[in-house]
Amino acid sequence: MLDRTDGRPLHQQVAESLRQEIVGHDLPPGSTLPSEAELCARFGVGRSVVRQAVAGLAADGLVIRRQGRPTVVAEPTEYRRLVQRATGLFDQFARRGHDIRTTVVGLEKATPPAPARASLGTSACLKLERIRLVDDEPLSYVRTWLPAARVSELDADDLVDASLHRLLSQRYGLRPVSGQRQVRAVAADERLAAALDIGVGTPLLLLEGETADQHGRPLEWFSAWHRADRVVFDIDVSETAETLTLDAASPREPAGAPTGRSRPTSEDLARARELVEELRTLLD
Amino acid sequence: MLDRTDGRPLHQQVAESLRQEIVGHDLPPGSTLPSEAELCARFGVGRSVVRQAVAGLAADGLVIRRQGRPTVVAEPTEYRRLVQRATGLFDQFARRGHDIRTTVVGLEKATPPAPARASLGTSACLKLERIRLVDDEPLSYVRTWLPAARVSELDADDLVDASLHRLLSQRYGLRPVSGQRQVRAVAADERLAAALDIGVGTPLLLLEGETADQHGRPLEWFSAWHRADRVVFDIDVSETAETLTLDAASPREPAGAPTGRSRPTSEDLARARELVEELRTLLD
Repeated sequence: MLDRTDGRPLHQQVAESLRQEIVGHDLPPGSTLPSEAELCARFGVGRSVVRQAVAGLAADGLVIRRQGRPTVVAEPTEYRRLVQRATGLFDQFARRGHDIRTTVVGLEKATPPAPARASLGTSACLKLERIRLVDDEPLSYVRTWLPAARVSELDADDLVDASLHRLLSQRYGLRPVSGQRQVRAVAADERLAAALDIGVGTPLLLLEGETADQHGRPLEWFSAWHRADRVVFDIDVSETAETLTLDAASPREPAGAPTGRSRPTSEDLARARELVEELRTLLD
Repeated sequence: MLDRTDGRPLHQQVAESLRQEIVGHDLPPGSTLPSEAELCARFGVGRSVVRQAVAGLAADGLVIRRQGRPTVVAEPTEYRRLVQRATGLFDQFARRGHDIRTTVVGLEKATPPAPARASLGTSACLKLERIRLVDDEPLSYVRTWLPAARVSELDADDLVDASLHRLLSQRYGLRPVSGQRQVRAVAADERLAAALDIGVGTPLLLLEGETADQHGRPLEWFSAWHRADRVVFDIDVSETAETLTLDAASPREPAGAPTGRSRPTSEDLARARELVEELRTLLD
């Protein structure tokens, strides 16, 4: 319900309430906005107030009005990142034709926080801070901790508009291949808000974790705060990935992961055999 | 810097600024708080103001003060969910000994939004809305769209304190095994804030997507908003998962996924051959 002592015009309050539902995916992209009559009843306002509110949302690009058909929630422009891969943002985005740029905010010797120190096994680290921009707008702020001994003579200039993972592979022969990642939603503090050009408190999608090289040795520990209005993480759930993740990767399973998985069924085994054949075909 | 015209006491402003950095993971759990001298210099305040601010953070459980050693950021209680699996929250959490409860907010015939309709291939759906609670506190709000024809006689009572996935398997013989998922950070709107007992605008971790059954037919389309102060999504990145996801799962890749992947290197192929042998050993 609206607060008539609020001071803001009623159409603004209706628009704000709908905007929150759209941004929160309570009304996801492609869904139909409730009819004018329904909105009038729900907010206890007249049709002209509802029309003005919806016109405001349309002007902001949040909804699309269509002649003689219901108004729908617009699809925002989003950048997608497949987070199961060790592949960095640079390679994933460049391949799709996005112009990704990188600003180096800082590169210095520093002592990492306890979790990074534990993961990397050393406190002699480089702290690298970067802003990634796509199509000239900030997309993410990335803080990476690297074991100093493994990346000697790393220079900030090497990383401007470049991929850290590519540099690690090409110059140091260190290929980032595996790791544990965590995804969190956090509110932007002042520093992150300024760097990413958003308001303090705006939700950010935080990807954190470690990456090991092809020999299983720790290579980096990072926190990457992504603008949540522009970035979506994609995850592919599949029986094969599930089976392999559980069985093949068990030495690196996180402490909190469940144990005691039951034996695969005959159906699972049949599927795995199919998979083996498919792999053979692919490779031979 | 502090705003001396702000009206709030200086120690509150210092505490709020540090609280934002802790909650935003700019100061991650286990990291050392800057020293009193550093904080005095940074905020331009005296030592007693800094001490009062840090005491406030300690009283709220955000930091831990230790005699003669630096103050560290506390590890919050977090519930972890491995999002690469089709396994629902219920099974993952129950296995770890958490007492998970489920309240059914509603179950009704309804028309799903366009993306759910496209995924499920029908508009004759059931809309199921549930709140999941762990240790009696709300953890997530889940809206699930199910094709009505595949789950006849589904009753809200069947789902109280129960697992939807288990019910689908046991009663309908439909085993949820694969799917595409998206992770977003969104701000809570009024309805979600009330249901999850948090403030409007608080960041939520949204897991959205579809799940297919063992025959590859669409089974559900869901949006699950998780309290971001309590839930972390775990992701396991591994070379094997990466290879298989890319090669084997390509028919189900989302529209936004990269195309034109370069040919695998001879090293990749060698690894894949190893994998095939490993799979054979496992299965034969």
